[in-house]
Amino acid sequence: MIERLAILGVGLIGGSLARALRGADAVGEVVGCGRSLPNLERAVELGVIDRFTQSPGDAVAGADMVFVAVPLGAMKGVFSAIRDRLEPGAVVTDGGSVKGSVVADALSAFEAVPPRLVPGHPIAGTECSGVEASFAELYENRRVILTPLPETDPDALARVTAMWETCGAEVTRMSVAHHDEVLAATSHLPHMLAFGLVDALARMRENDEIFRYAAGGFRDFTRIASSSPVMWRDICLANREALSAMLARFGIEMTDLAESIRRADGDRLLEIFERAKAARDRYVDSAR
Amino acid sequence: MIERLAILGVGLIGGSLARALRGADAVGEVVGCGRSLPNLERAVELGVIDRFTQSPGDAVAGADMVFVAVPLGAMKGVFSAIRDRLEPGAVVTDGGSVKGSVVADALSAFEAVPPRLVPGHPIAGTECSGVEASFAELYENRRVILTPLPETDPDALARVTAMWETCGAEVTRMSVAHHDEVLAATSHLPHMLAFGLVDALARMRENDEIFRYAAGGFRDFTRIASSSPVMWRDICLANREALSAMLARFGIEMTDLAESIRRADGDRLLEIFERAKAARDRYVDSAR
Ligand SMILES: NC(=O)c1ccc[n+]([C@@H]2O[C@H](COP(=O)([O-])OP(=O)(O)OC[C@H]3O[C@@H](n4cnc5c(N)ncnc54)[C@H](OP(=O)(O)O)[C@@H]3O)[C@@H](O)[C@H]2O)c1
Ligand SMILES: NC(=O)c1ccc[n+]([C@@H]2O[C@H](COP(=O)([O-])OP(=O)(O)OC[C@H]3O[C@@H](n4cnc5c(N)ncnc54)[C@H](OP(=O)(O)O)[C@@H]3O)[C@@H](O)[C@H]2O)c1
Repeated sequence: MIERLAILGVGLIGGSLARALRGADAVGEVVGCGRSLPNLERAVELGVIDRFTQSPGDAVAGADMVFVAVPLGAMKGVFSAIRDRLEPGAVVTDGGSVKGSVVADALSAFEAVPPRLVPGHPIAGTECSGVEASFAELYENRRVILTPLPETDPDALARVTAMWETCGAEVTRMSVAHHDEVLAATSHLPHMLAFGLVDALARMRENDEIFRYAAGGFRDFTRIASSSPVMWRDICLANREALSAMLARFGIEMTDLAESIRRADGDRLLEIFERAKAARDRYVDSAR
Repeated sequence: MIERLAILGVGLIGGSLARALRGADAVGEVVGCGRSLPNLERAVELGVIDRFTQSPGDAVAGADMVFVAVPLGAMKGVFSAIRDRLEPGAVVTDGGSVKGSVVADALSAFEAVPPRLVPGHPIAGTECSGVEASFAELYENRRVILTPLPETDPDALARVTAMWETCGAEVTRMSVAHHDEVLAATSHLPHMLAFGLVDALARMRENDEIFRYAAGGFRDFTRIASSSPVMWRDICLANREALSAMLARFGIEMTDLAESIRRADGDRLLEIFERAKAARDRYVDSAR
């Protein structure tokens, strides 16, 4: 049970956590914090938070659990703002999509990474933003990756694990670096391809016509290109190295594919498509 | 009203046309043709076709409308097989995803493109194949592009247009070359990215783990990588030029993106992502 939960960044990720914990009757009071009043007022109206403040320091006062769910570029500022206002036993965790940068930001804001800070990342989301987009079921049957450090307090880790399990999530652990590599492959690279494809088409002369003839598959394929540009700029900057490596790997794959098309190598194309289809079908089966 | 419809290739596309026309009571008899018996027998069981033959020539005998819906690589063989068996007034149309290759195949099989051949392409589909995947509503509110040639008979064009409209589709016309360029951008390139991404991940050492941590967006993004490898090999070979040009254009876009990430150019990334999001949101709004 959480007595007082502070949500810093009451958007899709923060709002959904508050809703899920409330739904499970696992939290006493929820205090929200953000920059813009309309989003915070709406969060109160929707019953996602009980009250709000625009000061991160005030938000964490008296809180036993603090969840930081701002874009990655805002993490360091939030950490600095709360560092001297945390309750002694308070547990701090976050939902940032990259973990290396969050740990680095904590290191620079707190001087040493606090033992009661548990870096985390729910593998769940939609392309929508803001509290309006949040919903209690977002984390049900989804994975949450926690990336504790050697110095992380086991009790803090257990509390964060229990919090996510209360939301219906399955909690796993991995190292910070491994998390950032895996997510570069499964999430960050696909977003780059979707943004890149839509942008390439949007810049073509006949772009209106092109979009008019896009079929159903295109809608699904490009859904993630409707995600928040600020959030994704921050993710790219925060996970530069792993993402660059994945982009290079993908570039090699596409060069091979383009070459096979150019020289009309049907056998090679079939081989690539069959391997991809088998992997995708296996993934979908196992994700059921 | 169609008296006797011959469907050459009773799969997703051919089967769905038969179902839709039957549903609208717009066809007398439907004769199916394919290579494998089980699929054809299943098509009869499902009520998609009335009877079948494995000979394209026999299938078109007595048919006033012929729909060719085999993979692109099989078009030429089918055209050759039916050329001397078509009824004098029969209209022939197809559902192939590339039109330049279909016209070239017709030219080589018939010596001159027959005036009553109307090349066409329904912009509708799923990642599933075979008659089992077909359904009557596939073409409802979807576009069908017809690419008539100067020599195309206006009456044949009108009959094919009416047939698709009966299925609930909106019929538009464009030139063969323009069709192939537009589809390279909106369909063929996205399929290459999906196949390429899944294959690149499948070839990574930790590929099992990687797919385990793929989130919901990944499922949608990669759905089209579960499409038929043979069909897509054929599309790549048939639309080599336009697809190669689109791959090159996309390569430039991704080089720009990767460079911006490498030099941590947040402003440039934001610009790309905002333009893409705006285009995607506009497309989805207009597609409602
Ligand atoms: N969306 C996803 O699919 C997803 C999935 C997993 C993890 N994440 C991670 O979760 C975090 C939040 O993402 P989200 O999708 O919930 O975004 P969101 O819906 O835009 O919510 C972010 C919230 O943070 C607030 N905020 C933004 N900048 C701030 C700043 N400088 N200082 C204080 N508050 C600020 C925003 O409110 P104001 O603008 O009013 O301040 C907003 O309520 C990000 O770190 C993201 O990487 C996202
Ligand atoms: N799927 C889509 O999203 C989509 C969308 C628009 C257009 N198209 C086009 O529509 C056509 C059919 O695609 P589909 O999705 O319907 O594929 P499908 O479900 O696999 O159906 C193709 C049918 O053609 C038969 N066939 C295959 N090779 C043949 C050959 N050499 N000779 C005679 N019959 C053969 C197959 O049966 P047997 O194997 O038993 O012979 C099968 O019933 C393709 O040209 C494709 O480019 C597809």
